[in-house]
Order: sequence, then structure tokens, then C-alpha cells
Amino acid sequence: MKNQKRTTIYDIAKKLNINASSVSRALTNGMNVSEATRQLIVKTAKELNYKQNSLASNLRKGQNQTIGVVVPRINQNFFADVIAGIEEVTYQEGYNLIICQSNESYEREVKCVNTLINQHVSCIIISISADFEDGQHLKNAMDQGIRLIQFDRVADNLDTFKVLNDNEQASEEAVSHLIAQGYKRIALLEGPQNLNIFKQRKAGYLAALKKHGYPVLPELIKENAWTKELGAEATSALLNLPDRPDAIFASTSDFSALGVLEVATKMGLNVPNELGVCGYSNEAFTEITSPSITTIDQYSMSMGKTIANLYFQNMLSDQVNVVPKIVSIKPKLIIRSSTQRYSI
Amino acid sequence: MKNQKRTTIYDIAKKLNINASSVSRALTNGMNVSEATRQLIVKTAKELNYKQNSLASNLRKGQNQTIGVVVPRINQNFFADVIAGIEEVTYQEGYNLIICQSNESYEREVKCVNTLINQHVSCIIISISADFEDGQHLKNAMDQGIRLIQFDRVADNLDTFKVLNDNEQASEEAVSHLIAQGYKRIALLEGPQNLNIFKQRKAGYLAALKKHGYPVLPELIKENAWTKELGAEATSALLNLPDRPDAIFASTSDFSALGVLEVATKMGLNVPNELGVCGYSNEAFTEITSPSITTIDQYSMSMGKTIANLYFQNMLSDQVNVVPKIVSIKPKLIIRSSTQRYSI
Repeated sequence: MKNQKRTTIYDIAKKLNINASSVSRALTNGMNVSEATRQLIVKTAKELNYKQNSLASNLRKGQNQTIGVVVPRINQNFFADVIAGIEEVTYQEGYNLIICQSNESYEREVKCVNTLINQHVSCIIISISADFEDGQHLKNAMDQGIRLIQFDRVADNLDTFKVLNDNEQASEEAVSHLIAQGYKRIALLEGPQNLNIFKQRKAGYLAALKKHGYPVLPELIKENAWTKELGAEATSALLNLPDRPDAIFASTSDFSALGVLEVATKMGLNVPNELGVCGYSNEAFTEITSPSITTIDQYSMSMGKTIANLYFQNMLSDQVNVVPKIVSIKPKLIIRSSTQRYSI
Repeated sequence: MKNQKRTTIYDIAKKLNINASSVSRALTNGMNVSEATRQLIVKTAKELNYKQNSLASNLRKGQNQTIGVVVPRINQNFFADVIAGIEEVTYQEGYNLIICQSNESYEREVKCVNTLINQHVSCIIISISADFEDGQHLKNAMDQGIRLIQFDRVADNLDTFKVLNDNEQASEEAVSHLIAQGYKRIALLEGPQNLNIFKQRKAGYLAALKKHGYPVLPELIKENAWTKELGAEATSALLNLPDRPDAIFASTSDFSALGVLEVATKMGLNVPNELGVCGYSNEAFTEITSPSITTIDQYSMSMGKTIANLYFQNMLSDQVNVVPKIVSIKPKLIIRSSTQRYSI
């Protein structure tokens, strides 16, 4: 990635001693700016080499300075924080951001992408839905010259920039931590295995068991337990086994871990002494539950900035066929009360 | 509001025994649908009176079947739930939804609205930012024939459809509940008074005090304490008063109430016995804090549906100058542990 300082609308605004928003308006739609001011701004933008970097290519293709983001749900901290990170960079660049949510439905995801194509966005940033089928809608977008960046949940077979978390390593670390705390029968709540992130988290779980010489017990692996309700349901089944688990790794989400915690509390089990609980994502609530929940932080804000910088530093040129590139971000295990046994 | 059943894309899909998404594509952008199928769909849409209701007027104005939503932040449950409600209705109608967040900045809000104008949306649904200045950007949108619906935080002087919560009544009820629990010195954490919702919540607080013959104590009213951090800061100041409050109504948000709870816990005060705490919004975490937090539910999902129905049932006609209308939704006080004293 090039790190040279690029001219932003703020540089132009500073030079002319006017509002950045006036500069942005003049360079995008010309609204609420006098023609004389607009011409001065365009002239200064050219002098400062602004236009060359961020406008020419899009305008030539009939695209506007808008980036579209498609996520499964906006009300999950992870996605909201990634979007905040993206927005911080796009705002500095004078770009607009429009957001669509697929609600975990492939049909809606296709609709979102088609909407963004129709809106002539210059880039689509996407994390795919749980029931993703094929990437035709994304190929359509690329065929029309729209840049595509996938993050977190990605379609492996599509040749695009991808920004990922190292889910496998983070999961291996979480399960190794549980083993170090003396837990012997560690259950896994797993997500839909057609999504890369859940496959990788399961691989990390299996790798940790193998590394420490623990057997894989199929009855302790529960599929698709990835909402609070499904997590609670799977936990009820697990805790009613004749030989029940002494720890549960809710690799799907913290919501699922919250379901585990609630069922354990209802059944009168002491967390962490009788049951260890580990979630995934570092949702804000994991700090305030009783006990607080051990989880994995994905540096989502910084992930968002990385994604947006990929666009502005590597893709914003006339070369549409840029080299595909994978950026991996290492998540961090946050150890809290739900896995710290008082006595091992 | 009219309640007659309107034809949706699902009716057309059912009649032709094809996917709803094909119908939507045929009627919007014509992508991935054969010309023969497209013509059949358009013909059926006409037969079922679909086009007349939801397409003609927008297409004539060069607008597309897209609705834009602008909210201060997408990662607050209230806004995320309102959007989910809006989306449920727009999806059924075959409309697309694009979302922008202003991050509580007026400059960004203006940018969001301009983006949506440029994207030729047919309707803008907005909840204004904290530092809202004037409504020129919204007037511009209306001047271009874009329908406007304001919700929750609204610019009073703009003649538009408004969907509101009865903040004053809900706040009066919350403070009356605190009084009934025996609290004598009830503090108020208030939000920016240029926003209608915070003015109304303060009015409700004052009304409850007056109704029960309690004096208004200016030292117990703290301004702009509307994030967790600001709520915590205001609470430290309040609890260090020589004559400190025995209850705090965080009328700004549950995040603020969480700040109150954390400071009280740090200072070793028993909540609810030594300090009552009431928040606002019924964020998911208020149920899982220890103790759980009394708060006010705003029926946000249903608010979202009401908003979208306003558009489809009342505004989607060729009459741009529809009668302005205010819809008020009554929130509900949710009493939890943080205000239920064991002994009064």
C-alpha cells in the first residue's frame, strides 16, 4: 500500500478558506455553491492534484463519489464498528457512504447489490449473508466497473480484495485458554459451515484439541447455534447430556454466548467454576454481564479503516484489473470472568 | 390511514408462479430477466393495479423505487429497530432501502441528504442530528418532489409527516414511578435542548414534580449528559453534592443510565436502595445489567412500520402537497430492579 499523503477536500478548503462541505458540494453535485466559487474550487482541486486521484476515473464511468456497503445486520457491534471505520476514511476523502442490510437473506443481498449498481456507486464493500448461494450479483457489479471489496464473510471463489480476520488462529487461542484453565470437555457452538468464518473457527477449535491431545467428541459440537435463542437451545441439550461439557465455546457470536450464560444461570450452574463460557466479537454487553464474558475482539473499527484505505490507495485508478489481495487482521482474545476459574 | 389491501410484488409473483425477486427486477431495472418475462410481468402488474399505486408517479419524476433513511447512528437499538420495521414494509412493497448515518453532525447530515437527492430516492425518512441548524437541505429535497417523513427527532418548523413518541407523557410516568417508590431527590440527566425529544422529556420530569408537589432543584439537573461517559461524569458530580440525589432519571439514553450505574457501583452505593436509576430506550443490555435497568420502550419496530405505511398508504400519489400529519406513539415504562426498592 502506498502511504503518500493524498490531497483531500480539507486541503482545498484550507487553501481557499471556505467550508469543506462547500468543496464537496462543488465537486459532486454543484448544489448550493455559486458558479464562480465552483469554478475556483475545481481549479484549486486541479492545482492540488485532487481531481486526478479521486474524481476523473469515476466520473468518466458515470459513477459518483459514493461507496455502498452491504452487511448482514447493522445492529451488531462488529458491523456497525466496521462501518464507522470505513466512514471515517470516506468522509475525509469527501466520499458518501450508503448502507444496505441483507438481514442474512441471500435474496435481499442480491436486491441490495442491484440497488447499489443502479445507484452508480463506485465501490461496493460487502460481507455476505448466511445463506449465500453464488456470486453472480457480485460479478455483475464488477462487470460494470464497480470495485468490490469483501470483508469478514467472503465468497472464496471471487477474485477480489478481501479483508479478513484470522478466525482460525483466534479460535485456537481461545480453546487453548480454556484448556489451560483446566476445562476437560469443551463444547463448540458452530455457525453455518458454508461461511468461511465459521469453517475457520471450527478448524481452530479442532486444532487446539489436537495440539493438547484432547479427543474430538461429536456430541459436544452443535450446529447453527448462532443467535441468543439458538445458543440457549443448544446449551439446554448439551447440559442435559449424561456426560455434560464443562465449557462452551460459542464461536458464532457473543449473542449465542449470552444464551449459554442465561441457561447456565437458570440451571443454577456457577460460571466459570462449573461451566466456562467464551463468545466471539467483543460486543459491548460482554463487559457488563454477570459474570463478564471472555470473547474475541476483531479490531472492527481499524478493519473498516483498512478496507476504505484499500479503495483509496490501491483501487482508485483507471486499472480495473488490480491484483487481488488478501489482508489478514489478527483478532485478540479478551479474557474475562466467565472463563477464569477460581479453583482449577 | 387507508387499510385496504394493496397489490404487492408477491401477488404478481404468485399469479405468474415465479420468484418475487424476478418481479422486482423486472419492474425496477430489468436486469437478469428476459424481455418476454419482463413484458409479462409489467402486463400482470397493470392488470393487478400494481403499477398505478407504486410506480407511475415515481418513474414520471425520474425517481426510483428506493427510500433513503438518515439516522444519527445505526448502532443504537432504537434506530436499528426502527429501520428494521421500515425495511419489513418496504421489502414487501418491492422497494429498496439505503441508509446513511449523520454521526450526530449537522454537516454530515446535510451531506447524507444531498447524497440521497443525487441518488433520486423517492422518499427520505430522517431523524435529525444533535446539532441540527436549519432545514434547508430538507426543503431542497422536498422542492425536488422527494417525499419527506421525519421521526423521533424532528424539525418542528418543517411541514412534513412526523412520527413521534409521546416523550413528555412517558417521562412524567417514569418520574411518577420514582416518586411512588419513595425517592425524594430525583435528578435529571438531560439532552441538548434544541432537540424536541429532550425538551419534551424535561417537560415530563417537571410536570411529574409539580403534580406531586416536589420542588424543582436546579442543582439536580445536568445538561448534555447523554453518552455513557457524560452520564458517568454528571453522576460523579451529583453524588458528590453535600445533599445528593437518591434517584437519577437518565432521560437521554440507556447508555447514560449505564454510566450512572457504573459510578454508583464504584462508589459502593446500593442500587436501587440507595440510588434509583431509570434510563430511556429499552436497549437490549438494560435487561442483563446487574441490577437490570428500569427504562422506557419506544415500540421502535412498530414505529418503523408506521413510518413506511405512511409513505405507501398516504403519500404515494401524484399529490405532492399532502396534508401534514403527526402520528404519536405512546411509549411504555418497563419497571426493572434498578428502581424497585426492597424497603421504602
